[in-house]
Amino acid sequence: MHRFKVTELGDHVFWLRDAEREHLVRVLRLSSGDAILGFDNSGREWLAEILKIEDNSVTCVMLEERQPHVEACSEVYLVAGLSKGEKLEWVIQKGTELGMYGFVPLRAKRSIMRLEGSKASERVERWQKIAREAAKQSHRVREPQIFGITDWEDIASVLPETTQWLIPYEEEKSQGLSQTLATLVSDKPIAILIGPEGGFDPSEVSYATEHLKAQSVSLGPRILRAETAALAALTITLAHWADLG
Amino acid sequence: MHRFKVTELGDHVFWLRDAEREHLVRVLRLSSGDAILGFDNSGREWLAEILKIEDNSVTCVMLEERQPHVEACSEVYLVAGLSKGEKLEWVIQKGTELGMYGFVPLRAKRSIMRLEGSKASERVERWQKIAREAAKQSHRVREPQIFGITDWEDIASVLPETTQWLIPYEEEKSQGLSQTLATLVSDKPIAILIGPEGGFDPSEVSYATEHLKAQSVSLGPRILRAETAALAALTITLAHWADLG
Repeated sequence: MHRFKVTELGDHVFWLRDAEREHLVRVLRLSSGDAILGFDNSGREWLAEILKIEDNSVTCVMLEERQPHVEACSEVYLVAGLSKGEKLEWVIQKGTELGMYGFVPLRAKRSIMRLEGSKASERVERWQKIAREAAKQSHRVREPQIFGITDWEDIASVLPETTQWLIPYEEEKSQGLSQTLATLVSDKPIAILIGPEGGFDPSEVSYATEHLKAQSVSLGPRILRAETAALAALTITLAHWADLG
Repeated sequence: MHRFKVTELGDHVFWLRDAEREHLVRVLRLSSGDAILGFDNSGREWLAEILKIEDNSVTCVMLEERQPHVEACSEVYLVAGLSKGEKLEWVIQKGTELGMYGFVPLRAKRSIMRLEGSKASERVERWQKIAREAAKQSHRVREPQIFGITDWEDIASVLPETTQWLIPYEEEKSQGLSQTLATLVSDKPIAILIGPEGGFDPSEVSYATEHLKAQSVSLGPRILRAETAALAALTITLAHWADLG
């Protein structure tokens, strides 16, 4: 059955507008009486029937609330240095499928890509769209939030105060990610800091360990590209709390 | 220091030819006396000095054998259904970085891409090149073998007889990957079967469980794209035996 993100929630009904309406009407060519699934960003999902298709909205009647249990219990954020090309796009796509809770793009020292002003906000919108589509495709009921592009000084204020920070770092030789996860708690958010291509500057690692109390961790002896490190660290963290695999 | 794949191994010397020689001479512009690292496919690595650059080869003198311990102890193969576009390319690239031991491309029922004859062997060569480059980039000392494109009937004869087979399957609801890994042994190879886009046909899952004694496993409640499933399953398996993270 096709799944749609609810635009507005009413009492026993919901509405789909804009891209969701377009997709339902033009691409899938559904009509009144067809059954669909609607989900909002709170983790809820409803079996519903299309009541009325109008020029600006589709009205759906809720038939039954479902509890899909598809969301991870642990809240794991990726905080990733800006990288060139499509790398962040697929970290966002794959990270959403895996169960990422949110994504913070970070202006890192070695980030070659610079995004400011309207270019930055357009890019964030585009990333949010990728997350939305991946959430639908993977049957998630909550779409990960993509934050605005953030500087190091502001990073602590963007995520919850209780966040537990991890920074995979190739110079960290003794402390592995898995053994570090065993020292964390699952009911507080976790944020994983990932460098841009070329990795973090040592001063950034110091900043993270001092100001965020981040633990630097090793991902093992092989050198991973930034995007591979992001997804491997996310996978291991979610799997650690049985939220994956 | 730059790392090169040894073309021919001698007594206290080795030679680099073709693409490796080109890369050293034209791209990196190294000269006699420069120090480099050479690795072969057996897991060995040498610190060496460039002795002589000739038109067809570069002769290097070994100074010291290194034991890099970068290779995973567990031998984990990915066996993946042919998929369109660049998906298998990046599964091979990222899988190599993570520590994949070998890769078998599989003609699956729902594979849209069909590769036969010389097109098939050209593609396998291209994949091998991607694995080679990713192995170098991630500082591995062994390049994963890319097997020829294989049919279901031949799959058992391609990998070692002692291989332990796993097949992630979205209809498997009870048996998770992590709990299944706890029933396997780390000194025999593991092969993870991954469907093409659209997943395996149920008859293929039956074939795998009957003829390969594969265990079907769940990767959790979210629906993963084939390429995401491949890398997540590989990551969780390698991490299970502390070969990653």
